[in-house]
Amino acid sequence: MRHDGRQFSDLRPIKITPHVSEFAEGSAIVEFGKTKVLCTASYEDMPPKWLQGTNSGWVTAEYGMLPRSTQTRLRRDKSMSSGRTQEISRLIGRSLRAAVNLKKLGECQITVDCDVLHADGGTRTASVTGGFVALALALQKLKGLSEIKENPLTHYIAAISVGMKEGQPYLDLNYDEDSSIHTDMNFVMTHAGSFVEIQGTAEQQAFSRQELDKMLDMATSGCRELFRHQAAILGDFFPLQLS
Amino acid sequence: MRHDGRQFSDLRPIKITPHVSEFAEGSAIVEFGKTKVLCTASYEDMPPKWLQGTNSGWVTAEYGMLPRSTQTRLRRDKSMSSGRTQEISRLIGRSLRAAVNLKKLGECQITVDCDVLHADGGTRTASVTGGFVALALALQKLKGLSEIKENPLTHYIAAISVGMKEGQPYLDLNYDEDSSIHTDMNFVMTHAGSFVEIQGTAEQQAFSRQELDKMLDMATSGCRELFRHQAAILGDFFPLQLS
Amino acid sequence: MRHDGRQFSDLRPIKITPHVSEFAEGSAIVEFGKTKVLCTASYEDMPPKWLQGTNSGWVTAEYGMLPRSTQTRLRRDKSMSSGRTQEISRLIGRSLRAAVNLKKLGECQITVDCDVLHADGGTRTASVTGGFVALALALQKLKGLSEIKENPLTHYIAAISVGMKEGQPYLDLNYDEDSSIHTDMNFVMTHAGSFVEIQGTAEQQAFSRQELDKMLDMATSGCRELFRHQAAILGDFFPLQLS
Amino acid sequence: MRHDGRQFSDLRPIKITPHVSEFAEGSAIVEFGKTKVLCTASYEDMPPKWLQGTNSGWVTAEYGMLPRSTQTRLRRDKSMSSGRTQEISRLIGRSLRAAVNLKKLGECQITVDCDVLHADGGTRTASVTGGFVALALALQKLKGLSEIKENPLTHYIAAISVGMKEGQPYLDLNYDEDSSIHTDMNFVMTHAGSFVEIQGTAEQQAFSRQELDKMLDMATSGCRELFRHQAAILGDFFPLQLS
Amino acid sequence: MRHDGRQFSDLRPIKITPHVSEFAEGSAIVEFGKTKVLCTASYEDMPPKWLQGTNSGWVTAEYGMLPRSTQTRLRRDKSMSSGRTQEISRLIGRSLRAAVNLKKLGECQITVDCDVLHADGGTRTASVTGGFVALALALQKLKGLSEIKENPLTHYIAAISVGMKEGQPYLDLNYDEDSSIHTDMNFVMTHAGSFVEIQGTAEQQAFSRQELDKMLDMATSGCRELFRHQAAILGDFFPLQLS
Amino acid sequence: MRHDGRQFSDLRPIKITPHVSEFAEGSAIVEFGKTKVLCTASYEDMPPKWLQGTNSGWVTAEYGMLPRSTQTRLRRDKSMSSGRTQEISRLIGRSLRAAVNLKKLGECQITVDCDVLHADGGTRTASVTGGFVALALALQKLKGLSEIKENPLTHYIAAISVGMKEGQPYLDLNYDEDSSIHTDMNFVMTHAGSFVEIQGTAEQQAFSRQELDKMLDMATSGCRELFRHQAAILGDFFPLQLS
Repeated sequence: MRHDGRQFSDLRPIKITPHVSEFAEGSAIVEFGKTKVLCTASYEDMPPKWLQGTNSGWVTAEYGMLPRSTQTRLRRDKSMSSGRTQEISRLIGRSLRAAVNLKKLGECQITVDCDVLHADGGTRTASVTGGFVALALALQKLKGLSEIKENPLTHYIAAISVGMKEGQPYLDLNYDEDSSIHTDMNFVMTHAGSFVEIQGTAEQQAFSRQELDKMLDMATSGCRELFRHQAAILGDFFPLQLS
Repeated sequence: MRHDGRQFSDLRPIKITPHVSEFAEGSAIVEFGKTKVLCTASYEDMPPKWLQGTNSGWVTAEYGMLPRSTQTRLRRDKSMSSGRTQEISRLIGRSLRAAVNLKKLGECQITVDCDVLHADGGTRTASVTGGFVALALALQKLKGLSEIKENPLTHYIAAISVGMKEGQPYLDLNYDEDSSIHTDMNFVMTHAGSFVEIQGTAEQQAFSRQELDKMLDMATSGCRELFRHQAAILGDFFPLQLS
Repeated sequence: MRHDGRQFSDLRPIKITPHVSEFAEGSAIVEFGKTKVLCTASYEDMPPKWLQGTNSGWVTAEYGMLPRSTQTRLRRDKSMSSGRTQEISRLIGRSLRAAVNLKKLGECQITVDCDVLHADGGTRTASVTGGFVALALALQKLKGLSEIKENPLTHYIAAISVGMKEGQPYLDLNYDEDSSIHTDMNFVMTHAGSFVEIQGTAEQQAFSRQELDKMLDMATSGCRELFRHQAAILGDFFPLQLS
Repeated sequence: MRHDGRQFSDLRPIKITPHVSEFAEGSAIVEFGKTKVLCTASYEDMPPKWLQGTNSGWVTAEYGMLPRSTQTRLRRDKSMSSGRTQEISRLIGRSLRAAVNLKKLGECQITVDCDVLHADGGTRTASVTGGFVALALALQKLKGLSEIKENPLTHYIAAISVGMKEGQPYLDLNYDEDSSIHTDMNFVMTHAGSFVEIQGTAEQQAFSRQELDKMLDMATSGCRELFRHQAAILGDFFPLQLS
Repeated sequence: MRHDGRQFSDLRPIKITPHVSEFAEGSAIVEFGKTKVLCTASYEDMPPKWLQGTNSGWVTAEYGMLPRSTQTRLRRDKSMSSGRTQEISRLIGRSLRAAVNLKKLGECQITVDCDVLHADGGTRTASVTGGFVALALALQKLKGLSEIKENPLTHYIAAISVGMKEGQPYLDLNYDEDSSIHTDMNFVMTHAGSFVEIQGTAEQQAFSRQELDKMLDMATSGCRELFRHQAAILGDFFPLQLS
Repeated sequence: MRHDGRQFSDLRPIKITPHVSEFAEGSAIVEFGKTKVLCTASYEDMPPKWLQGTNSGWVTAEYGMLPRSTQTRLRRDKSMSSGRTQEISRLIGRSLRAAVNLKKLGECQITVDCDVLHADGGTRTASVTGGFVALALALQKLKGLSEIKENPLTHYIAAISVGMKEGQPYLDLNYDEDSSIHTDMNFVMTHAGSFVEIQGTAEQQAFSRQELDKMLDMATSGCRELFRHQAAILGDFFPLQLS
């Protein structure tokens, strides 16, 4: 049993609240336990320069943490330009592009902002999971407005972390667990059970092939649960068919 | 009558939700109509360098807007370092320092972050009003923890805007009104009816002494209403005595 | 009586020297006592991008302090990008735009640079007052060259500070007074007696409505004197008619 | 067969040239085919501030590309601060720290600079592989000079990329292959066959669990070959024992 | 004869006005024709970190141009950080250090700011020449205040430019001449006739050894005249003895 | 005799290795003793904006030092933006432009990057000397590809340093000599014996006219030797004719 009473393979309580912004084309607040991220998707009818004239669109993402989303206040300027922030922004952007047929999207750009209101571990996985909902809601709205002709979504996308400590995998680490764990992996998956991103770091002790296999199993079942949360909001627009 | 059905001297619906962050020493979400600002107060037991050894503390503030808090997405980097952002941060900081006896605060620093989640005009006045609540809640908590000995609050502080158009003052402008108004003034007041800050700009047409008097009257009554909202949360710790 | 022998309602000796730069379209050195600011107005025949095609022009301003304009040398890089510098630049720009009919100006931009050579308090009010002269001289020259067709000036603009200490208002604070004062207000006025900007901050003690009234009276008479100094230079081009 | 004549499971020709700098405590030029990286390890007898007093040392890394290491010249300023550069620097640093017992290292810091002289794909895997040699040579020298008492190395560390295209894995991608591949994974391994880092991105098509297994097999055999190249230089100081 | 009526070996009218700032320890406005530079010398009783504990002081310089010192307005931010600005700052600093025995100066720092009010060619040579006066006046004052014990000046320092066009040298180029010249050299000399700095650039056509000799002769006589201007102000404190 | 066994008028061993980059249009590694610089010339078919439409091209240069090219590691960010770096970049650019008829070059830009791999004094003179070879090789290639019609080279360009200590000139200073010398001059010359740039700084003691003459003689003979090294590579494309 874990400190917060979860089984090793339990997610924290998941909550996704859609339509939280009047301005953004799509938006959601996603909560993984106490971690809470505001995700907004913003549409521009112009793609980035290097895509102009290609009939193809773009999806990009930016990640940020509010200064007191964390136990110790972060300096606003340092936080924004840090390597970690840029790395997570890039991860979210790549993950969300894997959900979309950019040709069907047409010449435009959608920017997904993921701003962490409260941080208790797993902010990047919550951002991908909630960012997907904001993106899909924006596409639903844009299709309703005939800004795009076809639904360009190809997959549900969700992300989850798995830790490894003394041979035992832990699903969806919170901040305290993350601080005491040997290995921390993040998996971004499609609802078809394939992988979009795998990022794993052995902080103190390298992990074996067998340990990796256990973590892969746990991530797969965790993401299936996240897809159901997303589909409760998006199912009418984009029905979920789990394999 | 105004577009949203208000009388000229009506505030928008005001809502202040305290204790919204688990980490911050004090926090509140303040809403002036659709404008919504997250205010957190963060305590450090060390004052800024130039105050060390003076037995005096400091209160400072930082203001930010989330990228899609506005109708058109703001660029994250531009927004943060803009002159407007710095100007508002400095205004909030000065206003909140007027609420506190810095000697009684002792050698420490409290940073109030005001992050705009949704912007529909009046973000700086909402930030001062909500920032005061976050600051006072932090002081209440720190006093409970004996980090500070006496309550250093000296006044309630609130802020409101008043516009002027064709000789008619308008209380608490929303974004649409702000865009069409001739003069926009911001008043920061104490519950004793005195002024901490007055900032007024005639965008298109200078205002006369008589018009200024009308705006001062309206601001005074608007702030009285804001003090009552603040006191509903803080009254036990710091009873409100309106003159 | 004040330290420098002035009455409470006295300005410091005012001196405005026009035509100090061979290159700038308009220029003046303005002195309020020992405070000395070089103001130049620079013309470009292209407005900022967002105004192109609107038949409207723009006036903007930048404020700077030379490193040793002050008692203690300022760091050049810090000074330029500071919040205070940006705040004052924006104030000067807004104030000068209030003097001009931007439609009559036509599609162009005038940039007024106010560089403080010597700082003894009141640098922002001296900058507005001298910046207006530089701007008006540039307009006079441009009209002579037929770059603009009509004189677009609508008002004289000047600015003055008033302080408040123990119920007594002080006109045109110098540095020492500013450091010991409770409240410091800056007023930007038109020659018609209306207000373009009011900025007031109670550094230590909030000010009452009655105190504000006294400060308004004093500012009004101070600005009338400044208008006469400006008109001694500009009166042929733009006659002053005080109400 | 691949364009350059390799089998799918072949590395490019690997060459590691040690002792290329007279100044650096350890150095090597590593070549993976035409990719060529200069790795230097620099010793400071002071750890970063947050480690002072802990009897523990630190290993960090910085990655850079010379402006014309690539087919199209990179802008020097953009390249240095880009998200990609920071992301790779952090990856190299984490990987090399996994090779070292930081307690045995003692209070000091070693900075490994990996500067790409010629870029033909795989610059981050070459940097980890060559950076390990530079680091180990520095430790050998420092031990010789008695700056450190014990050899703090715990593992050989090497890294390799594997791509996936239409179900076929490709070992050690060059630039052309990288541009046309569906999935690109980077593996950092220890000589004991465990994983320190896994980073995989499906650029166009998500990869299945079976495809991941094939890539893991290929990476494992590729790294074994890299360890032998490293051990040819380092074997006396730190004998390689492959499992 | 030159456009402005000078002989090839004539300086422009030289004017040095001392004591122009109330705050700076030493100050002067220097004019070479229409070029006009404000020079201030600021004293700090602490040397830069790397000199602390060496009983030695430091002299440094910063150069700047006001935005409208030139025919076309300069952007404030670009001007300050440009390579040209840094290069000239470094030149002035090196030149002035050559005038001072840093050991006799003792542990302190003097910063000479040279801000160009009006630019008509030769701003760097005017800055060195006027900066020396500001520096010497500061030393005179500091010696008067017993902040320094001995006069640490060892030489008069002045600087002048010489151009070369079709075999003819031109002394003290103005802006128009500078724009049409083949070679532009700047010489910094001591009153003893030695060279502190020589910087010469052949913009269009390389110059021969014979041409260099002619330019050296002309610079030597030009600097002698500048020393006399400096000595008219400084001669009591530091008598000039030309060889 | 000098510490490394050289006569006062001896260059260090010179080595220029051409064609070291597969990507750059021209490239060379230049070695002056232990100083080693990688020079690449990169071609773009578009000149800088301000030259567009003039039928003229541009040559520019950038200089950098790898972090551990020096005895003590340089901070990457500080090194890049330092005044020294910008100053040297500008020197190299000016020097190389003196070798080229920019009209014959046509509308294009060539950027020469000089990155110091190992620094033992004289990095700027080695950069000019090696940068010329990279530039000339690029022109040779571009002429072969008919990107340019005529060879636009007008001169060989090389650079050398000369020091002065107690009346004795030293050719081609290494780092140790540079640190102990009174005067350090850098000369950029054409093969016709003319000067393109002279930069000399008396670090401790000003130098006399006679000393300058000795340094000029030594530089002239040193550059003649460098031209022969360059011509061994470039002579077929651009025959050297020493006067």
